[in-house]
Amino acid sequence: MAKRKLRGGMVGGGIGAFIGPVHRMAATLDNEAEYVAGAFSRDPKKSKKSGEELGIDPSRTYATYEEMAAKEAKLPADQRIDFVSIVTPNNGHFPASKTFLEAGISVICDKPMTTTLKDAKTLQKLVKKSGLVFALTHNYSGYPMVKEARNWVRSGKLGKINKVVVEYPQGWMSGMINTPGNSIGMWRMDPEIAGGSCCMGDLGTHCENLVRYITGLEIDEVCAELTAFVKGNRLEDDGNVLVRYKGGARGILYASQISAGEENPLAIRVYGTKMGLEWRQEDPNYLYLKDPAGLQTRFSKGNSNLSQEAQAAARLIWGHPDGYIEAFANIYREAFKGIRAVIAGKKLPECDHPDADDGVIGVAFIDALLASNKSKAKWTRMKT
Amino acid sequence: MAKRKLRGGMVGGGIGAFIGPVHRMAATLDNEAEYVAGAFSRDPKKSKKSGEELGIDPSRTYATYEEMAAKEAKLPADQRIDFVSIVTPNNGHFPASKTFLEAGISVICDKPMTTTLKDAKTLQKLVKKSGLVFALTHNYSGYPMVKEARNWVRSGKLGKINKVVVEYPQGWMSGMINTPGNSIGMWRMDPEIAGGSCCMGDLGTHCENLVRYITGLEIDEVCAELTAFVKGNRLEDDGNVLVRYKGGARGILYASQISAGEENPLAIRVYGTKMGLEWRQEDPNYLYLKDPAGLQTRFSKGNSNLSQEAQAAARLIWGHPDGYIEAFANIYREAFKGIRAVIAGKKLPECDHPDADDGVIGVAFIDALLASNKSKAKWTRMKT
Amino acid sequence: MAKRKLRGGMVGGGIGAFIGPVHRMAATLDNEAEYVAGAFSRDPKKSKKSGEELGIDPSRTYATYEEMAAKEAKLPADQRIDFVSIVTPNNGHFPASKTFLEAGISVICDKPMTTTLKDAKTLQKLVKKSGLVFALTHNYSGYPMVKEARNWVRSGKLGKINKVVVEYPQGWMSGMINTPGNSIGMWRMDPEIAGGSCCMGDLGTHCENLVRYITGLEIDEVCAELTAFVKGNRLEDDGNVLVRYKGGARGILYASQISAGEENPLAIRVYGTKMGLEWRQEDPNYLYLKDPAGLQTRFSKGNSNLSQEAQAAARLIWGHPDGYIEAFANIYREAFKGIRAVIAGKKLPECDHPDADDGVIGVAFIDALLASNKSKAKWTRMKT
Amino acid sequence: MAKRKLRGGMVGGGIGAFIGPVHRMAATLDNEAEYVAGAFSRDPKKSKKSGEELGIDPSRTYATYEEMAAKEAKLPADQRIDFVSIVTPNNGHFPASKTFLEAGISVICDKPMTTTLKDAKTLQKLVKKSGLVFALTHNYSGYPMVKEARNWVRSGKLGKINKVVVEYPQGWMSGMINTPGNSIGMWRMDPEIAGGSCCMGDLGTHCENLVRYITGLEIDEVCAELTAFVKGNRLEDDGNVLVRYKGGARGILYASQISAGEENPLAIRVYGTKMGLEWRQEDPNYLYLKDPAGLQTRFSKGNSNLSQEAQAAARLIWGHPDGYIEAFANIYREAFKGIRAVIAGKKLPECDHPDADDGVIGVAFIDALLASNKSKAKWTRMKT
Repeated sequence: MAKRKLRGGMVGGGIGAFIGPVHRMAATLDNEAEYVAGAFSRDPKKSKKSGEELGIDPSRTYATYEEMAAKEAKLPADQRIDFVSIVTPNNGHFPASKTFLEAGISVICDKPMTTTLKDAKTLQKLVKKSGLVFALTHNYSGYPMVKEARNWVRSGKLGKINKVVVEYPQGWMSGMINTPGNSIGMWRMDPEIAGGSCCMGDLGTHCENLVRYITGLEIDEVCAELTAFVKGNRLEDDGNVLVRYKGGARGILYASQISAGEENPLAIRVYGTKMGLEWRQEDPNYLYLKDPAGLQTRFSKGNSNLSQEAQAAARLIWGHPDGYIEAFANIYREAFKGIRAVIAGKKLPECDHPDADDGVIGVAFIDALLASNKSKAKWTRMKT
Repeated sequence: MAKRKLRGGMVGGGIGAFIGPVHRMAATLDNEAEYVAGAFSRDPKKSKKSGEELGIDPSRTYATYEEMAAKEAKLPADQRIDFVSIVTPNNGHFPASKTFLEAGISVICDKPMTTTLKDAKTLQKLVKKSGLVFALTHNYSGYPMVKEARNWVRSGKLGKINKVVVEYPQGWMSGMINTPGNSIGMWRMDPEIAGGSCCMGDLGTHCENLVRYITGLEIDEVCAELTAFVKGNRLEDDGNVLVRYKGGARGILYASQISAGEENPLAIRVYGTKMGLEWRQEDPNYLYLKDPAGLQTRFSKGNSNLSQEAQAAARLIWGHPDGYIEAFANIYREAFKGIRAVIAGKKLPECDHPDADDGVIGVAFIDALLASNKSKAKWTRMKT
Repeated sequence: MAKRKLRGGMVGGGIGAFIGPVHRMAATLDNEAEYVAGAFSRDPKKSKKSGEELGIDPSRTYATYEEMAAKEAKLPADQRIDFVSIVTPNNGHFPASKTFLEAGISVICDKPMTTTLKDAKTLQKLVKKSGLVFALTHNYSGYPMVKEARNWVRSGKLGKINKVVVEYPQGWMSGMINTPGNSIGMWRMDPEIAGGSCCMGDLGTHCENLVRYITGLEIDEVCAELTAFVKGNRLEDDGNVLVRYKGGARGILYASQISAGEENPLAIRVYGTKMGLEWRQEDPNYLYLKDPAGLQTRFSKGNSNLSQEAQAAARLIWGHPDGYIEAFANIYREAFKGIRAVIAGKKLPECDHPDADDGVIGVAFIDALLASNKSKAKWTRMKT
Repeated sequence: MAKRKLRGGMVGGGIGAFIGPVHRMAATLDNEAEYVAGAFSRDPKKSKKSGEELGIDPSRTYATYEEMAAKEAKLPADQRIDFVSIVTPNNGHFPASKTFLEAGISVICDKPMTTTLKDAKTLQKLVKKSGLVFALTHNYSGYPMVKEARNWVRSGKLGKINKVVVEYPQGWMSGMINTPGNSIGMWRMDPEIAGGSCCMGDLGTHCENLVRYITGLEIDEVCAELTAFVKGNRLEDDGNVLVRYKGGARGILYASQISAGEENPLAIRVYGTKMGLEWRQEDPNYLYLKDPAGLQTRFSKGNSNLSQEAQAAARLIWGHPDGYIEAFANIYREAFKGIRAVIAGKKLPECDHPDADDGVIGVAFIDALLASNKSKAKWTRMKT
């Protein structure tokens, strides 16, 4: 029998948004879900218009997410939404997530989970108590070859991990360096909306999550320098970090929005006592195994010699590139496994998606960076 | 107002198929369509089971495509399918396409369009007469950077085109070379099902289409050698072709299924009097401009410096890889433009998808290769 | 004890030449030889001036190669040159080689060996009779990873070879396509000097040699199209060839001088029943092994996991790039082994450099291409 | 007129050495010099044997460098060496350099210049006083495309530099991590011979030099963590550094010997307010210009669109790879310009090679790293 389609709602993601459409394509790619409700903008008119364009029944396009949560919760079980996708700017993540969880609705939320560690812990507790699904879209862990990388580390192929280099340089703000006027209004640079960090909250947390996903390593201490190169930017647009992982591994983690000419080259290199590995997001269907004997082997997505997990995460066979949307859809697919269990009244199965615990760590990571930077790059312990 | 979702049917593509799911993801990626009917297999039980898994109403899962066409055509206009996706082995393309077109239903069909030139021309006429949409899934033209390449040639950036090298080596049959027993049953090697060609029909026609899409060049003559390396293969699994294009350009075109270790590296290089270009399917989001002055410039998908057409074909901004499914979905998106015009009773707009004319050329190309090969690589004029 | 330095002479290679300095750097890189004599130009003044710049004793800078051969041959054994490097345009190769061999002096000669097959065979016989060394600078076989590739094929790692794709597109003439005036004087386009072929004699023969060196495959038949795109060019500047190798392998071989924007990307891909390999001259320190199981492994020059031959051909360890000169020097190093044996009156050892037999095959290859092209791409048997 | 060949001597570099032969090939590649003397090993027998193999007159193969300096200095001007190449382990650099400079002989010396800052400054003064040439072989600045990168920064193409990422991970010690026994004797790990640093002295100083050569940026402060992963290693084999450059640029600099599977991938990325650039030593003939508009342009060595400096540094045209030896030879070629001026009694011209000032900075850089690491990654000012 076909599984019934899950019903989704969306908070944010109206006309002109970047990440909203990604969520919609990702959630529906496998024909497992459809969006039936939304509060697409803080501007009720824009929300309404967005709903129309998306083919949402006008009665379920809401002016606010509070209204949406309240009204959806009262709908009969065979009509109300099974999950909500929260794709607002950062400061919307916490209140919206809290509201829907309290209304009994599972949440898929953009990162960072919250703008303060206190909120993050509140949410973490709430998720546990609720028994609902909370998935955080650190989407890069959705790529098949990232899953393969994790498998290599877990299986001992690399030996004990000694060093990790993770980088995420972007260059889109470099143009603003010379023409600051038109950019400072941007929400990512506004502490009220973005929280205490611009670049590291946006990009650095993906780095932290990717390292932990692949290697399992937890950060012990960080030593960070954060810089705002764009004039007028009250938050940093570049961050360089030395990292000490628990157990003795060392690392470099950096992110940037002023690395002129870089697009989105998130990359990770992991070095163990036996082997090294390398993965690059802009060429995501390949994973490289580096043998000290002088061989470098490229593994391809969708190939039968990969781990079961990596194979399952590929939608197409080798040579047929899976892209960003497909990886994003893997986060949803895993969340849907959990949501269906919730609906069926079953115990939550193990699902391979970032969750509230990851969210807390991500926010704690930002806090540690800010503290280290404030103390002039003193080694600062990460506290979760 | 939201556009209503188009209703699709599918012929072939049941459980275990490779290309069926690609069509389903591609057709629904933009939330423009949903599949509501199908004849998913020649085996009625398998068809039924596939329909169930796909969540199709059992009353619309048919035992044969003939039944499907007949019954769907009789449904009220607000229920019957708007289009059908034909994803059977090659010999199913013609009869199924004909049947649905005659029933007044637009068709998206896998390539090659037919197994004989006669059938291709019959279909071409039928399409014209019907006023319906017929789209052929030469999907590689759906990639944004292929559209950019076409734009470069059209705008004169390369000068007059002198040489084109297009290649499509795969290696998946190389394993069969030594163990022929288990492969010979495969439909691609069966002339009754595949038509007169295995490798060139499957891969070579993509090459021909890609060259023509990008450069507009039409083949004048071919000089071909086709070889079956896999023992027992009655059709070729490797083909090498010299090409003379009308107007004086020269080229090489080759495809292979026995190039051990190759995955799906379709690639094209075009050389003009001013510049050259290169595009590689396994790294599809980049296009290279080659300047004889010694500069090679990489252009990225999703970038504002591209042509309007290439920009429109990108679902995500630069650095966020679009993959095979997104390119495939672009074929559907263009077909949907036409289908909505048909529904609205409007004149068919210009749509950027391969059509029946391309299908005729593709089959004529195969015919010319077979004739040239038979005559021991004599230059053979292509006749459409 | 140190080996004494060999004494070399040079014919051609005066001021402003491209390949002359390459020979000089290559011959002396390992401190095994020095140039002490030369006839550097047909213009005696230019020859003299070149000799001065190179620090050659004026008494040994000759006006003609004939004078040089005659006078050097009469010098005492501990003064006269041990070898001569012939780096003139093509039509100088035969008479100069003949003259020096007859004078008892070993020859290192640029390719193609001669401009006619008759001359090539004459030279081949003369070499055999003389007992001297004759080395032809098909320099690309000097790269360490080309030697490794040969080793892979020989050792059976790839299985039986089925297909070979070799390409050598350059683009430097593309600028001339629009401005023919200034180019037509060039010797490469002059049949009197270059022989019957421009592009294929210059580049195509490297392709033929590289395939044979790596795979051992001998050409049975060719089917060729040669084209002159540059206006006024009496010889071809582009050539596309289908190849049948003895034993059943099939291939593509092409070369070009009008592939706009290409620099010097000679490349070869070899596909066997078990594995494939790929090597690219512009990134020469790596060799790729392609496994149909979906793994592609990069082997690095200077690495202890390579064959003895490949290791010996690397001057530096991995990660320290060897370049064109080092590869060229490997041809000289092997020739010097032979020359020292000649001096010592010993039997010629097996030396890993192209020789007169390779030269004959190269010229026969050009002849076959010209014949096939003339007959409109009829399959033409290669005759040596 | 030909320039006479310069006469060189060598300290260190006997049989089995890695860098000795590199110096010899580099110094003689352009036919400008020959080695005529040497003290090739601290072991007189080995020195003698090495001299024999190299064809050095036995009377000029010395037991010690002190003897060599004393005796050579007394030879007539037309016999004695014009320069000496010092290629011993680190602790030999200072005393040997001092000895030869005091004997009136120009020096080409391996890096790091000395093992203490005090010695470095002593040598710096001595060089100035002597009027002789002192060249330090930070050889990577010899690559043509590194010179082009410098030109880009100087000419303002990148705008004001904001960020620099330089990395030099090697993996050759990763094998020792598990088997410490056989490695600890190695001189690079012995503070008595190597000085206070292993990895950063060997690799990190190349990074510092490369950044300064290309960008002109001087380090203000460093924040460093140095780690010894190989058991028993008293010096670090991995170092990660945050860097503050004078003028506000920020950077990351890291080097490693335990990055399993890495060969020699020194790489630099420089980001300005207008453009970014990237260069990678393992693919040294290309330089990438990154435009925030989404274009990445590859420039090739040996191309006429490069700066005069970069063109002059290429031995061969584009597509014909220059390697490590050719880049190294460029250091020598520049040093020879100075040495010929010294011989001619002329004022030292500006020569494009690292010198004693660079040597002092390199040693001060190591000192700052060690101090920062000792203080637990406190920002530490670099003092020269």
